[in-house]
Amino acid sequence: MDKDRLFGLLDQFMIETPTWAYADGRTRFGKFHQPSSASTIEEKLADAATVHRYTGCCPAVALSVVWDFSIGVDASATATLARKSGLRIGSVSPNLYEDQIFRHGSAASPDERAREHAHRHIVASIAIAHAVGSKGLSLWLPDGTNLPGEDDMAGRKERIHGALRQWHDAMPAGMKMLLEYKALEPACYAADVADWGMAYIYCKDAGPNARVAVDVGHQYHGQNVEQIISFLADEEMLGGVYLGGRPSAGAESPLGSIYPFGMFCIFHEIRQAAEVRGRDLSRLVYRIEESQGPRPRVQAMISSAMAAQELYAKACLVDIKKVTDAQARMDLVEAEACLRDAFSSDTRPMVAEWRKKKSLEPDPLAAYRASGLEAAAAKEREGARAAAGLPATVEWKT
Amino acid sequence: MDKDRLFGLLDQFMIETPTWAYADGRTRFGKFHQPSSASTIEEKLADAATVHRYTGCCPAVALSVVWDFSIGVDASATATLARKSGLRIGSVSPNLYEDQIFRHGSAASPDERAREHAHRHIVASIAIAHAVGSKGLSLWLPDGTNLPGEDDMAGRKERIHGALRQWHDAMPAGMKMLLEYKALEPACYAADVADWGMAYIYCKDAGPNARVAVDVGHQYHGQNVEQIISFLADEEMLGGVYLGGRPSAGAESPLGSIYPFGMFCIFHEIRQAAEVRGRDLSRLVYRIEESQGPRPRVQAMISSAMAAQELYAKACLVDIKKVTDAQARMDLVEAEACLRDAFSSDTRPMVAEWRKKKSLEPDPLAAYRASGLEAAAAKEREGARAAAGLPATVEWKT
Amino acid sequence: MDKDRLFGLLDQFMIETPTWAYADGRTRFGKFHQPSSASTIEEKLADAATVHRYTGCCPAVALSVVWDFSIGVDASATATLARKSGLRIGSVSPNLYEDQIFRHGSAASPDERAREHAHRHIVASIAIAHAVGSKGLSLWLPDGTNLPGEDDMAGRKERIHGALRQWHDAMPAGMKMLLEYKALEPACYAADVADWGMAYIYCKDAGPNARVAVDVGHQYHGQNVEQIISFLADEEMLGGVYLGGRPSAGAESPLGSIYPFGMFCIFHEIRQAAEVRGRDLSRLVYRIEESQGPRPRVQAMISSAMAAQELYAKACLVDIKKVTDAQARMDLVEAEACLRDAFSSDTRPMVAEWRKKKSLEPDPLAAYRASGLEAAAAKEREGARAAAGLPATVEWKT
Amino acid sequence: MDKDRLFGLLDQFMIETPTWAYADGRTRFGKFHQPSSASTIEEKLADAATVHRYTGCCPAVALSVVWDFSIGVDASATATLARKSGLRIGSVSPNLYEDQIFRHGSAASPDERAREHAHRHIVASIAIAHAVGSKGLSLWLPDGTNLPGEDDMAGRKERIHGALRQWHDAMPAGMKMLLEYKALEPACYAADVADWGMAYIYCKDAGPNARVAVDVGHQYHGQNVEQIISFLADEEMLGGVYLGGRPSAGAESPLGSIYPFGMFCIFHEIRQAAEVRGRDLSRLVYRIEESQGPRPRVQAMISSAMAAQELYAKACLVDIKKVTDAQARMDLVEAEACLRDAFSSDTRPMVAEWRKKKSLEPDPLAAYRASGLEAAAAKEREGARAAAGLPATVEWKT
Repeated sequence: MDKDRLFGLLDQFMIETPTWAYADGRTRFGKFHQPSSASTIEEKLADAATVHRYTGCCPAVALSVVWDFSIGVDASATATLARKSGLRIGSVSPNLYEDQIFRHGSAASPDERAREHAHRHIVASIAIAHAVGSKGLSLWLPDGTNLPGEDDMAGRKERIHGALRQWHDAMPAGMKMLLEYKALEPACYAADVADWGMAYIYCKDAGPNARVAVDVGHQYHGQNVEQIISFLADEEMLGGVYLGGRPSAGAESPLGSIYPFGMFCIFHEIRQAAEVRGRDLSRLVYRIEESQGPRPRVQAMISSAMAAQELYAKACLVDIKKVTDAQARMDLVEAEACLRDAFSSDTRPMVAEWRKKKSLEPDPLAAYRASGLEAAAAKEREGARAAAGLPATVEWKT
Repeated sequence: MDKDRLFGLLDQFMIETPTWAYADGRTRFGKFHQPSSASTIEEKLADAATVHRYTGCCPAVALSVVWDFSIGVDASATATLARKSGLRIGSVSPNLYEDQIFRHGSAASPDERAREHAHRHIVASIAIAHAVGSKGLSLWLPDGTNLPGEDDMAGRKERIHGALRQWHDAMPAGMKMLLEYKALEPACYAADVADWGMAYIYCKDAGPNARVAVDVGHQYHGQNVEQIISFLADEEMLGGVYLGGRPSAGAESPLGSIYPFGMFCIFHEIRQAAEVRGRDLSRLVYRIEESQGPRPRVQAMISSAMAAQELYAKACLVDIKKVTDAQARMDLVEAEACLRDAFSSDTRPMVAEWRKKKSLEPDPLAAYRASGLEAAAAKEREGARAAAGLPATVEWKT
Repeated sequence: MDKDRLFGLLDQFMIETPTWAYADGRTRFGKFHQPSSASTIEEKLADAATVHRYTGCCPAVALSVVWDFSIGVDASATATLARKSGLRIGSVSPNLYEDQIFRHGSAASPDERAREHAHRHIVASIAIAHAVGSKGLSLWLPDGTNLPGEDDMAGRKERIHGALRQWHDAMPAGMKMLLEYKALEPACYAADVADWGMAYIYCKDAGPNARVAVDVGHQYHGQNVEQIISFLADEEMLGGVYLGGRPSAGAESPLGSIYPFGMFCIFHEIRQAAEVRGRDLSRLVYRIEESQGPRPRVQAMISSAMAAQELYAKACLVDIKKVTDAQARMDLVEAEACLRDAFSSDTRPMVAEWRKKKSLEPDPLAAYRASGLEAAAAKEREGARAAAGLPATVEWKT
Repeated sequence: MDKDRLFGLLDQFMIETPTWAYADGRTRFGKFHQPSSASTIEEKLADAATVHRYTGCCPAVALSVVWDFSIGVDASATATLARKSGLRIGSVSPNLYEDQIFRHGSAASPDERAREHAHRHIVASIAIAHAVGSKGLSLWLPDGTNLPGEDDMAGRKERIHGALRQWHDAMPAGMKMLLEYKALEPACYAADVADWGMAYIYCKDAGPNARVAVDVGHQYHGQNVEQIISFLADEEMLGGVYLGGRPSAGAESPLGSIYPFGMFCIFHEIRQAAEVRGRDLSRLVYRIEESQGPRPRVQAMISSAMAAQELYAKACLVDIKKVTDAQARMDLVEAEACLRDAFSSDTRPMVAEWRKKKSLEPDPLAAYRASGLEAAAAKEREGARAAAGLPATVEWKT
């Protein structure tokens, strides 16, 4: 592949990073605080902007309605702040689990008040998304049951169908609904949107602007994620790919190592769908979605964005004509070799050159680590916490 | 539940047993021969008839096109023989893997000759099914790839869509296509019909008489099978439930123990779909589908059929009004207790009574074991093998 | 089995319940508050006592060093309170994750201060356990890594060996160390004590009073838990069985439904080990360990204890002589039938009779639900929270 | 790393290929024949020699007692033939499943005759191994049960202990026993040597010359294979690593793509164990063990050997001092980067240079494909089959 073509493909490979990725993350067991982690929306946007300034491939920021906006405060102020930081607004995520009323679920809850509360929250979220210029409503229903018999499965399904149709119709023109799926967490018997098949059926029924969002980490063990992505793209139902480290029925492990060949195959299938089969994936949302482990947040995000770019570049190197010919001849060895050759190539120099062309540092991670920005942020944020009377470190009890 | 109602439900719970279940089965590593195993179609039908004569709940026999019919022989002779034995014809299974031409798949193969061969075999299978009075074409596509890049995933999908539409339209009125799914076997990278979502989309596209068949053993670890069944039933897309012992991405383990609560939940969801939500499941095919382990085949089948009946009867005992009320009140403890109470009940006496009403032995397994039939079959079949010049026992090399 | 023998076995089947099971539980995503949930150690002990008063099979309470004891307060006061409530002290759990210093692990941490902190905490925990008369130090190391290369695996192993030997030797005579294992949570790349094999090797090396504790929920998909338990019992290395609902690499789902046959098999293997093979399991710790879902805590615990008893009673019904004979004759059908017959039996009446003999209500769950105790506790506890200036409900932010 | 050091490490990285990998392989569903596949021991050795001649890294051939040796024929003739072909003898595999007597298992069988038969076969296998100069007895026990209750788990364990001790003591000085493990296949309820923990305990008990062999494909979903390997190496109990494509509870998928990062991590842990912790792994057996899919066998093996070398070379590039320092400073980002940098490097040129130094073709796969050898073998072997009266292609019935 010639360099211009590769650089053109890299120009199109742009990733959202979510504001919550810049805050301390937690497991069921607790939360480890880092001095440089962001607490406020201003700090989160500053971090997202830093990541984009260094990587050049993270221009959009995904927002959380509950964590990033305050009631009575003009949402567009956040959008203005983001734009000033050099970011555009990505998808907007409502939150259907952080309220006691969602005890038995949100859209699927047998409690009518919970469903109404969910509906109001979604309507408000759509309004916020509209106000900030977001084109994507990113939905995850944490609904599910913990016990056999706890609720009527088909009844829950019917309620979700109804809610999604309503929510779909409440979106303004041009907005897409992106529906995630995940099994067994937080509910441990039956998640209501447990797998891609359920998400597909809900989206099909909701209306023409609903699409499935595939979080790479939310698959059953043994599932072939690139095949699911290829399948959904072929059905014109793929809306988002949330990048993470390993398909494993729940946890979002870090991108980069652990699962690089799988990510490469995913990118390859997306390229195949677009270039060979003519599927329109121009609005596909890529988002880095990892559970926040013990790494400093900005370093982790830069590292993951670099990994994503390098793996995407590898997928771009697959000689599509050659692999297609080998497949047609049923020459399995050569067909596989086309993928392996591309994957074996070291794409770091190419991506570094792309960066230089854009006046970026060739090694964003090294440059950021050398910049002193992390220490400065840590000092400032610890100070701000102290000034606000917050503890120097977060303590918690389960 | 009053006894008449339960007996009525048991009257409707009728199971197909497949002819191949009466032959010696094999793993990747070999095959253990049993003297009483069936080798010929006559022996297989005789065994199926025995199972029904003892259990009263296995009136239909599922047939395999390749193993049960011979080219040039009138298929209706087999049907006549079955009917004479007191059996009706269940679903008919084509075989799309036992020919060297299927090396790269059948419907999905990049080899046009393979696809044509598959097509001819399906047309012939439909003719056989029609000739024997079967209403169900039971399809499993063993297609898949072993290596990343081996073939174009979306191309394979397109070929399958095309084939299934053609095959659907080749069926006579009143026939249903039942499409199974299974991941990772025999291909170890990507099965072309890997999960229920893919099967659903293929069936939707194929036409109005295509339905998904759920083999309980063909799920990913952690998947909730009863939810999938409830979901498909609600979408009016559930065509068959193939009963086995444990959901586990491949192997069909024996029904009965290992997974009884799961089977109970499956039967409960089917009852819910029919009684609470009015779904028409009157043509749902139940089939016992286990890999043939080391038990004598007829004993194994009687044992599994008894287990299925007992678990089905437990599901019938769920007080649907009570569980619905508890669910509406969000009384999780009582709602779960409704299922647990039913499952904890000992349904063996009730099923024994149902059998007595039908002039069957109350304990079919004990009665069969005491009958001497197995020893007689073994003697006769060993003799027939010897007379035919076949070895007394099967030897094999991988 | 005659009734006296069964009742004798039930008399011996005594379960610990942990104090933390009476508080609100949480997932990664939040915590749903219930008015009747316990907040203080007094409330937790009161709830544990209630559960035992109704079930008669939960006489011991497991304590958490961090949550149940306060620095500078005499630990024996807690023990006295427990005994006054009619409880005895079960195992005591240190907590090696709720401190910022455990960011990179506890015993395995490359940070020497973390290891020293862990050591001091364990020494203090042993002192507390000793003070309250506990014979079991229940250990779970949350240690692990999130990224390939993050730390040296063998180095972490060596540090754990060293710590466990030290901790083992710090225990007074008569105390047992019970070491749990769990994969992939909280760390998502490599848990340091990921499976039973690792736990076994650590215990063997630590010293003669270390034993493996098997949490039924902490297995890989597809693993046969009863076999692991049989194996460990045969090696005289089984120290505890923590009862839960489904083996699934992490989450502790509720006992009772979901996985009843598996629990039955576990109890059967324990009985086999004791009765057939003469293993001394008299000090085996049974503990109910579920993630606290949306059910009122005391109801959930009574329900689980009843399920455990009923399943244990089924295991007691297995005719060991008959199954042993059938196994010796390699009569697989009869051998399996021995287990199935026992499992199919309805043991609720027998357990109810056992309760009556002990002057307990025959249906503890119904009796508790009718008692008004839950509403009274809710009222009192809400009042206490208000008086303490705590919010009526718990709010949280991730 | 300087080139000499890398080349020295590559010189030590030598792989066994098994004779059976050159024959047609099968799944449960059938066997696809390839004209160039080997049928006789002579053809298999010729193919193994070809693979070594092209790759320079496969000097040893693993043999199967049942498939490669004939009763009454001097085993040393096979060894002589191998040596003439430029090969040395690797490990020797007895076969404990291809005889009807192993219906209920081999070492674990309740049938004394089966155990005696197994014993005689092992004694004969040891004699053969000794005669051909093999230092490794590679054992896989296919033993297991299909039904709960089918046999006494602890009884089976005891029988295996006894057999392994006997077999261990029957080995001559200098021979190692390599014990594999695998879950759920061929038995679907409980495999008797199901995981690495069981294999470890059996080996420890058998004697000082027993070691665990880890087949990368035989793990539970979610298990971290490199950690198991690190753990066993640290315990001085790692005897073999059988290279394959994906850890997944059974199937042996092809090495190369699918799981390259995992293989790299495995090689890294082995290097760590040897270089950092001083474990003696000089006798570690590497063997390529894949299920034979639809690729021509020699091409598949050359391709896998090349992949293994390239991944091993990547592991050699890890800067151990740098990663150790970063780990000590708890700089997670840099520590992970050390592995990622090494993995991202393109090692194909280095390995090609190593080949040139050894007067090998730089691209063995391309050279072999261009050589005409495959077509020649196909022609000759088809001819030989015809001359022997064998069918041109293999037909089978299940």
